[in-house]
Amino acid sequence: AAYAKGRPGEDSAWVEQHPASSCETRVYDDYQEMLEKESLEVVGVCLPFFQNPEASIAAARRGIHVLSEKPAATDLSDLARLEHQVRQSGIQYSIMLNMRTLPIFRAARQAVQQGAIGEPILISSQKSYKYGAKRPWFYRERKTYGGTIPWVGIHALDYMEWVSGQKYTHVAAYEGNKAHSQSPGCEDHAGLLLRLANGGTATCHLDLLRPEAAPTHGDDRLRIAGSEGVLEVWGIEERVRLLGPRGKSGDLPLPPAVDFFTAFVAELRGESQPLVSSVEAFDITRTCLKARDAADTGTWVAL
Amino acid sequence: AAYAKGRPGEDSAWVEQHPASSCETRVYDDYQEMLEKESLEVVGVCLPFFQNPEASIAAARRGIHVLSEKPAATDLSDLARLEHQVRQSGIQYSIMLNMRTLPIFRAARQAVQQGAIGEPILISSQKSYKYGAKRPWFYRERKTYGGTIPWVGIHALDYMEWVSGQKYTHVAAYEGNKAHSQSPGCEDHAGLLLRLANGGTATCHLDLLRPEAAPTHGDDRLRIAGSEGVLEVWGIEERVRLLGPRGKSGDLPLPPAVDFFTAFVAELRGESQPLVSSVEAFDITRTCLKARDAADTGTWVAL
Repeated sequence: AAYAKGRPGEDSAWVEQHPASSCETRVYDDYQEMLEKESLEVVGVCLPFFQNPEASIAAARRGIHVLSEKPAATDLSDLARLEHQVRQSGIQYSIMLNMRTLPIFRAARQAVQQGAIGEPILISSQKSYKYGAKRPWFYRERKTYGGTIPWVGIHALDYMEWVSGQKYTHVAAYEGNKAHSQSPGCEDHAGLLLRLANGGTATCHLDLLRPEAAPTHGDDRLRIAGSEGVLEVWGIEERVRLLGPRGKSGDLPLPPAVDFFTAFVAELRGESQPLVSSVEAFDITRTCLKARDAADTGTWVAL
Repeated sequence: AAYAKGRPGEDSAWVEQHPASSCETRVYDDYQEMLEKESLEVVGVCLPFFQNPEASIAAARRGIHVLSEKPAATDLSDLARLEHQVRQSGIQYSIMLNMRTLPIFRAARQAVQQGAIGEPILISSQKSYKYGAKRPWFYRERKTYGGTIPWVGIHALDYMEWVSGQKYTHVAAYEGNKAHSQSPGCEDHAGLLLRLANGGTATCHLDLLRPEAAPTHGDDRLRIAGSEGVLEVWGIEERVRLLGPRGKSGDLPLPPAVDFFTAFVAELRGESQPLVSSVEAFDITRTCLKARDAADTGTWVAL
């Protein structure tokens, strides 16, 4: 195995301490050099976000499978080039939508699929994180960070669709930065309004305003009101509560968690279906970038 | 005191049983007749919703103070005529935004005013009601009902502003009817996205999808993320939870409830400021009607 630094001067001492590291693990200053010298089957891509699509394209060109940080790209033209290269190369590509591994979202998805709330009609969600003292330099500008909708909102937009089984058709959005003016590209609040293909509605709100002293980093929530009942997912409490049609209500039992990396390797070996397919990875990234456009332009945008 | 039926055939037997009723209480078939024959100081207006502005105008013309069901009107032209007449007559006018009387919202407003969360940045709210078996005939059509944003959403739009002290500048919305097709004018779900004058964002979702067997009729929620902390109001649990800047968090003590009618009479007697002023009543109604326009047209609408 090999590791390439995000930039030449990076301190990579931690790599040697990593359980996956061995005496044969090579460290490179540059991913291009690593790709040339090593014979790799799969790479994990996690650079400053704007650099992820170029690195993924470089790997794909060599026929190397890619598991990338989300979003797949921070602008639509990079995304189109990446999609083209992944299709051409025939590699397997996925992004780290790791919330799909959580028992709470898996239980909720299964309940919806089993008809526990009838047809999903109104979906709402919350992502709330601490800003954190250690945001790296590339969070400061839109060009390098991409924006809070593609970086944070992508989880909520993904689990709203994945749990409900409903697709978005249009998006309106608004966002801004009021509490962290040193990072103008890192919006600290955003709201999204989406139309669903079945005529239903979705809303989502995001923030990086959670107090630093709060007991958890995040506070994820999902609610789906359907034609027959209401389902709610509470991240901090790790609870999924169902309010069913005939007063039948209570917490759902939770299945075991799935390991994201193990699942990706199983996919590569043909042992299982993708947890996040390349089509899904590109679609949800495109949705986020169009939602960012909707916020930038103050218009509804078709998806 | 006197009571006028909503329509001539109405069964008004309940009026005689009402604690405010006496042997001198007259019952009329028609409010015009009542206004002509009685000498009233104040009327409560609660007709099928589309008829409320006309009845309020008739009372205002005679110099009678009005406490009306919300919304003040179900279209913008009726609202403009009503505003004009109320100003001309110099009467006191208010609408039943009774959520302002609840200890939870009063405590939340006081905490924000005292700076508990710094500057409000991201506001979100939920109104969820049962549809109910007994919706009267006028809920079926937009023309007579007005819509779920003006009827249900008005509470959330009001308490988001009233608690946070922030004003809206623009709104986008989407809504529909999927579970109660017999009442096409009564949307059973809606989502709203609003920009705040300070650059912040608000979202709101409404539904009439709460299962009939649920333990309460409604499930109101309000959350405000500010520059210094997060405040949440839980209607069912009657709790206001503050997550403050230095880990200082917990439930706020609740003040006593206020009686809406008593407060209005105190206002008429000059003993207190209005709980809901006529300007606020007209402004929030206009916001709701414009939000309905935003949903109808699929555009952002300036407020």
